Amino acid sequence: MSTRTLIRGGLVVTAAEELHADVLIEDGRIAALAARGTEAAAAWTADRVIDASDKYVVPGGVDAHTHMEFPFGGTFSSDDFETGTRAAAWGGTTTIVDFAVQSPGHSLREGLDAYYAKADGKCAIDYAFHMIVSDVNDRTLKEMDLLVEEGITSFKLFMAYPGVFYSDDGQILRAMQRSSVNGGLIMMHAENGIAIDVLVEQALKRGETDPRYHGEVRKALLEAEATHRAIRLAQVAGAPLYVVHVSAEEAVAELITARDKGLPVFGETCPQYLFLSTDNLAEPDFEGAKYVCSTPLRPREHQAALWRGLRTNDLQVVSTDHCPFCFTGQKELGRGDFSKIPNGLPGVENRMDLLHQAVVDGHISRRRWIEIACATPARMFGLYPKKGTLAPGADADVVIYDPAATQVLSAETHHMNVDYSAYEGKQVTGRVETVLSRGEPVVDRREFTGRAGHGVYTPRATCQYLD
Amino acid sequence: MSTRTLIRGGLVVTAAEELHADVLIEDGRIAALAARGTEAAAAWTADRVIDASDKYVVPGGVDAHTHMEFPFGGTFSSDDFETGTRAAAWGGTTTIVDFAVQSPGHSLREGLDAYYAKADGKCAIDYAFHMIVSDVNDRTLKEMDLLVEEGITSFKLFMAYPGVFYSDDGQILRAMQRSSVNGGLIMMHAENGIAIDVLVEQALKRGETDPRYHGEVRKALLEAEATHRAIRLAQVAGAPLYVVHVSAEEAVAELITARDKGLPVFGETCPQYLFLSTDNLAEPDFEGAKYVCSTPLRPREHQAALWRGLRTNDLQVVSTDHCPFCFTGQKELGRGDFSKIPNGLPGVENRMDLLHQAVVDGHISRRRWIEIACATPARMFGLYPKKGTLAPGADADVVIYDPAATQVLSAETHHMNVDYSAYEGKQVTGRVETVLSRGEPVVDRREFTGRAGHGVYTPRATCQYLD
Amino acid sequence: MSTRTLIRGGLVVTAAEELHADVLIEDGRIAALAARGTEAAAAWTADRVIDASDKYVVPGGVDAHTHMEFPFGGTFSSDDFETGTRAAAWGGTTTIVDFAVQSPGHSLREGLDAYYAKADGKCAIDYAFHMIVSDVNDRTLKEMDLLVEEGITSFKLFMAYPGVFYSDDGQILRAMQRSSVNGGLIMMHAENGIAIDVLVEQALKRGETDPRYHGEVRKALLEAEATHRAIRLAQVAGAPLYVVHVSAEEAVAELITARDKGLPVFGETCPQYLFLSTDNLAEPDFEGAKYVCSTPLRPREHQAALWRGLRTNDLQVVSTDHCPFCFTGQKELGRGDFSKIPNGLPGVENRMDLLHQAVVDGHISRRRWIEIACATPARMFGLYPKKGTLAPGADADVVIYDPAATQVLSAETHHMNVDYSAYEGKQVTGRVETVLSRGEPVVDRREFTGRAGHGVYTPRATCQYLD
Amino acid sequence: MSTRTLIRGGLVVTAAEELHADVLIEDGRIAALAARGTEAAAAWTADRVIDASDKYVVPGGVDAHTHMEFPFGGTFSSDDFETGTRAAAWGGTTTIVDFAVQSPGHSLREGLDAYYAKADGKCAIDYAFHMIVSDVNDRTLKEMDLLVEEGITSFKLFMAYPGVFYSDDGQILRAMQRSSVNGGLIMMHAENGIAIDVLVEQALKRGETDPRYHGEVRKALLEAEATHRAIRLAQVAGAPLYVVHVSAEEAVAELITARDKGLPVFGETCPQYLFLSTDNLAEPDFEGAKYVCSTPLRPREHQAALWRGLRTNDLQVVSTDHCPFCFTGQKELGRGDFSKIPNGLPGVENRMDLLHQAVVDGHISRRRWIEIACATPARMFGLYPKKGTLAPGADADVVIYDPAATQVLSAETHHMNVDYSAYEGKQVTGRVETVLSRGEPVVDRREFTGRAGHGVYTPRATCQYLD
Repeated sequence: MSTRTLIRGGLVVTAAEELHADVLIEDGRIAALAARGTEAAAAWTADRVIDASDKYVVPGGVDAHTHMEFPFGGTFSSDDFETGTRAAAWGGTTTIVDFAVQSPGHSLREGLDAYYAKADGKCAIDYAFHMIVSDVNDRTLKEMDLLVEEGITSFKLFMAYPGVFYSDDGQILRAMQRSSVNGGLIMMHAENGIAIDVLVEQALKRGETDPRYHGEVRKALLEAEATHRAIRLAQVAGAPLYVVHVSAEEAVAELITARDKGLPVFGETCPQYLFLSTDNLAEPDFEGAKYVCSTPLRPREHQAALWRGLRTNDLQVVSTDHCPFCFTGQKELGRGDFSKIPNGLPGVENRMDLLHQAVVDGHISRRRWIEIACATPARMFGLYPKKGTLAPGADADVVIYDPAATQVLSAETHHMNVDYSAYEGKQVTGRVETVLSRGEPVVDRREFTGRAGHGVYTPRATCQYLD
Repeated sequence: MSTRTLIRGGLVVTAAEELHADVLIEDGRIAALAARGTEAAAAWTADRVIDASDKYVVPGGVDAHTHMEFPFGGTFSSDDFETGTRAAAWGGTTTIVDFAVQSPGHSLREGLDAYYAKADGKCAIDYAFHMIVSDVNDRTLKEMDLLVEEGITSFKLFMAYPGVFYSDDGQILRAMQRSSVNGGLIMMHAENGIAIDVLVEQALKRGETDPRYHGEVRKALLEAEATHRAIRLAQVAGAPLYVVHVSAEEAVAELITARDKGLPVFGETCPQYLFLSTDNLAEPDFEGAKYVCSTPLRPREHQAALWRGLRTNDLQVVSTDHCPFCFTGQKELGRGDFSKIPNGLPGVENRMDLLHQAVVDGHISRRRWIEIACATPARMFGLYPKKGTLAPGADADVVIYDPAATQVLSAETHHMNVDYSAYEGKQVTGRVETVLSRGEPVVDRREFTGRAGHGVYTPRATCQYLD
Repeated sequence: MSTRTLIRGGLVVTAAEELHADVLIEDGRIAALAARGTEAAAAWTADRVIDASDKYVVPGGVDAHTHMEFPFGGTFSSDDFETGTRAAAWGGTTTIVDFAVQSPGHSLREGLDAYYAKADGKCAIDYAFHMIVSDVNDRTLKEMDLLVEEGITSFKLFMAYPGVFYSDDGQILRAMQRSSVNGGLIMMHAENGIAIDVLVEQALKRGETDPRYHGEVRKALLEAEATHRAIRLAQVAGAPLYVVHVSAEEAVAELITARDKGLPVFGETCPQYLFLSTDNLAEPDFEGAKYVCSTPLRPREHQAALWRGLRTNDLQVVSTDHCPFCFTGQKELGRGDFSKIPNGLPGVENRMDLLHQAVVDGHISRRRWIEIACATPARMFGLYPKKGTLAPGADADVVIYDPAATQVLSAETHHMNVDYSAYEGKQVTGRVETVLSRGEPVVDRREFTGRAGHGVYTPRATCQYLD
Repeated sequence: MSTRTLIRGGLVVTAAEELHADVLIEDGRIAALAARGTEAAAAWTADRVIDASDKYVVPGGVDAHTHMEFPFGGTFSSDDFETGTRAAAWGGTTTIVDFAVQSPGHSLREGLDAYYAKADGKCAIDYAFHMIVSDVNDRTLKEMDLLVEEGITSFKLFMAYPGVFYSDDGQILRAMQRSSVNGGLIMMHAENGIAIDVLVEQALKRGETDPRYHGEVRKALLEAEATHRAIRLAQVAGAPLYVVHVSAEEAVAELITARDKGLPVFGETCPQYLFLSTDNLAEPDFEGAKYVCSTPLRPREHQAALWRGLRTNDLQVVSTDHCPFCFTGQKELGRGDFSKIPNGLPGVENRMDLLHQAVVDGHISRRRWIEIACATPARMFGLYPKKGTLAPGADADVVIYDPAATQVLSAETHHMNVDYSAYEGKQVTGRVETVLSRGEPVVDRREFTGRAGHGVYTPRATCQYLD
């Protein structure tokens, strides 16, 4: 006889439906949903019954873009897989897809194995990996095929960061050609890093060293340019394309144009681009450094295009690009030279709440909230139907969400291992109450009940969003 | 104790999911879904068990555009609500939204009551009504408010057919303004009828009387023009817009442009535009008359834009515009003058099959098939979640669909009351096996088991696709 | 031996060239141009020598859109052909193309003859006529052919003013079809008058009677809509199109889209849209009425799109739409009801100066100034090469322009027969010094030396801008 | 007393006018134009009188893109400045702007001086230079300033040919920033050479070595991509941009989009893209090699977009990119490896005739012929008003053109030093009769009367097309 959990009385919200239904879990998977008040529902018994009255019952979040313990600028992001996934769970996210990194001169295999090891036994929730390919060559192209079969079905390339992660257009084209055959999905950091580095050097030479210049040199037009270029290269290769952390209105416009032609081009944005702006980068006393990430925050006017893109499905996914660095000791590396500030923001804990706030604010519907935060990332990266939905057969990654509770985001209360919050003091409506990961409570009525090692590595199928 | 039906062993396909799940029906509604092989599923018993092994279990189709017993050109469409809904059931459609017609000089009320009476006790499946407003004036504007409250939440206007259904731009604007307040959705027949009538007159004067000239005078540019105009008027009124039977690539382009801006503009197309073309209109011996409808069939090259629009969600719905006229005695009214051929094609029985063929042909995915044929029309016209999906709490309108069976479409075997098929001889893969309407079998393993009067009138909420 | 005038020492500016050249006039036509300092130039003698040192020598302006003595709203525009053409001469304009008007129920012939008579013997400068077609029908279509042969080669239609000048889309299409055969050019007042009249009625009902509501109800989107519709109808007819008084950014966008496709679509704007805005319409104490014209003045933000359109040649012509009504007694007819304010602004005297100011302000180049104000209107309406340029063989319509002089525009100093200036108090750099009409000085060093009757009627060829 | 030449009786055609006028030349410059039949014209006497009855009198052609004695792929283009300029004169071109080349590791100065020397004393017609910058660095950026002052006001960069002429995006940005200050104009070879080289290598590896694969690997999308990128970089730099040899419809679309926004972006195409296609590249027996140039010839369908661009002024200039290599001994270097075929076509002699044929074919007007072949290239590259027009004061570079004569283009009759014609056997209507260079006949009634060394180096002002 299986272990059974029954969630009673909530409003089940998925990307597709809103139902007054009870959810029955058997052995860590969703066994059944039944309409409230039916004989079928009434007949169910369970070992554990969770009362979800006045709550939403939603799929656990899927954050398809995190960087735990990520090496950048001579330091590492401050969350490791233990602290980072614990914070994710607190925020209602039950799956992360992190990035394994190929070190220059080393194979993909080595990079991947290192990340398997880093995460092993640490995670509170399930996890998977994309692969950052730092050096596209004949050998790594062959390794890509093997990785796709192993469940690493997406590969990130960079048009920025020359000398570090940068790939030139020939390398990009070859990787895309390969992915058009092996089913992998190319994820692109689309900024013209070669041009940006010229502007960086010129700015520093002019004495423009404050964090806000980070935003000025990484121009929206150069994000748009790279986005367009990536689209064209994908078109030549006959491959789909996923553009990460889209921040500029002009880049959204490139996606729109491509999608209008029916090209399989997708875009991700992040909460920081939706809620923050260059105003934050301009905060005095080097506080702007807290908001340094790439692509950079944009002037507030860009936000409308991002929200519209999320509504029109020209942007499909909201991930966090969670890559925290402490202000003290890490962000400070860039005092006097913005180009030395480690790039990245904390956010894995805040995403589900901030997007619920977007529902409250009228930017998106409840169902769209779940679609961009759970269902589409799962489909995009081959985790469906295990993850991203509440359907019979799916993993029982479930969040009981209180839509009426209010909270104030703050470094004092968050669970990420970083000494500031990008949203310090922001009040939001809505709060995670309880989180199940494969049926196990990892957060139970605002108590953490999970453990390092509960989360398991989840190999992925190829992109399911193209079907 | 309720009456229970259990559908076992099928692949449940909805707009959102594909599940190996059993479906439990209690008293005409979906009570629960359970994953195959779970204890929950194993525990269920039922009065009737349907074996759906190797079959799809899909929501019954929602055809949001039919014209039963419709007056046109001095005659009536040849299907009444009895024959038409029976044919719909045979084709896997379990809900139609037909059009009540305001007669010039009469109130909406009178027109609506006449249609209530026409349909009453005749229908094999559930039905609802849109309202055709032939005369927008102060009185009818006020009636629109009342009708919305009564469950008639969409209103069709015509930019074509001057002197019959035509509304001028001022009337259209006023109706849209009203709908922006009362929540009604304006449906638009978008063709510049004033300009077209000039071209009709000129063509006839030149002796161009054959059916194919119907296609030549109703120019794609004049559909695009009217589509653009309707969008602009809706923008001025602050109202959403639903454009019916989009057929021209240039009209799709207008929808794309509007939607890229985030405007709430929607488009419907029909199987005839996806599968037929001006080649059919040019068939000799007046056979082209069988394919006369407005908007007209277009050159084959337009089809790619329609398919692409369906994939990119720039078109949201496929309805039939079912409006059959017998070739003998009805279509023949236009011999020697194409403008006298009654406009319309039979199709209510063929839609689900033709769209499944589109899945087989690779135009759309299985889930998109259900989305455009069931879920979105239901949401668009306020029938959700009763209709259009298979979710706990929904009406048990269910089709058991055999994806492997083949059939040949033909007037000899179809059930519509019309003496020809627009798809005569076309072989398609996939066939309806069994159809439940609110839990009752109306087609049972290819036998009609329904009855006139089973179908009930279904008042509608306002548009749910805007959420 | 012919009468000779020699203009020495100026900078000759045409649409194509800037030359230090002397200009020799024989018998009212430009005989020759010679480079400064050549033997050829030195050898010339003349009856009259004009010293143009430090001055520009430019073609006389061609104002392709004026309404002298025009019936509107129960009154007539306050300039007749005598006062109006005298003011034009003062402002450096040597040709106007006015509008003959078909009265409802009467023939084009009658309307045209009435205007021939109105202007005969009155004009200080040369003049020609477009024809306003108020009633497109079989008879007027035939008359259009005759008029083209007679030298009336352009026909204005209105999509605004239902019940007065309005043509429906069928009439427009038929007139365009005719012009595609007979070479006539359709000029379009592009505003959706049917929709606007609904908004007018609603505004008045709400008590919104001030002049500024004129600008609010005549929405930019409804100008854009009509512009798009006119373009589509022209495309169906295979005819070129000239859109008059373009004022809205959204309308410019429609022209751009059409022209990108290579369609022969042209746009005119007017100084009032370039220099004035809804701020003027909102002036208190009914002063806003001075700025009531249709299309209406737009918010200031639209001006950038107009200037850009002039630079990119998406707009080709700047005319005045000169149609003055005195504030006292005429504009005042609309106190308490903006819809009764006669539509129109004075401007024929100010155009060349305002556009020179645009040169000074950096909006356009000197050559472009002459192109949009002289050369293109002449070509567009079949007056080339007699008018619009300074080339051997052209009519000696010449302006000696002082680019350094400054002046203040004011009703106290202007020569138009109207009691206010739309540009009261505006200082501009540049001033007309001397004006020759066919070699005769009509303004001589800031003295009026012309006479009523000097100006002659000038039949026109068909559009030369399509070559 | 000066030397005088008088051209009588012709139709003077410039970019702006068509005049029946006589042209008086004094001491190598146009002294005056007088209308036919005036006393002014009748009074003129001259040392030499040219009868131009039934002929056009047009400005000498300005070919802004030639490569005489150009090093490529280990060989040199087969025309030197003597043979090349003689052929140009035969074809009615009286000015060429050739390209001085910076050799890697050397200064611009050295490269320029070498070209001064190469051309000195050799040219039959006047000439000027652009500068190819192969290595953008701090030193060359400074040299650019000096060169602009010296009369070298345009600089060509390559996004193609990695390892040879290629500049990366940072170098391009820096050069553009510099040109935004010093007034220089960046000319761009816009093809993504990095991506193309991958495709070249892959094609060769697949054994695709024939000339036609040259066209297949240099994809239209990669020309469009680079065009877009160059535009974006220019936008960031605030600089104008001139894209050379535009061949792909998709690249034209990028120019259109940029120009619609008012950006100062210009495009050149060449006769080979207007009249030839991939059909030529596919000619058997390695004959396709004759048509190998970069950007490559495109499928015939692209031509319509180029002609339309020339009509709408989205393309402004037609140059030849004249860079001939003999089939025997030079093109043959690429047998068995298309990537080794020297890139380039002969054409300097054919341009004026082919574009006149375009007039005959109805693609462009006579005035537009002169504009794209004479006036605009002169303005674009700072040669106005000396070159490109027939106006008082201009250099007397004049062509007497017989519009009625016919000729057959052929290597047997042409004067370029190359053993094939790209237009072998093509009949064209129109032929150069007589050519004056600064008043001197270099071709006199189809006899060459010029000499090496008549042509002089002509320093240039900065771009005059931006005014």
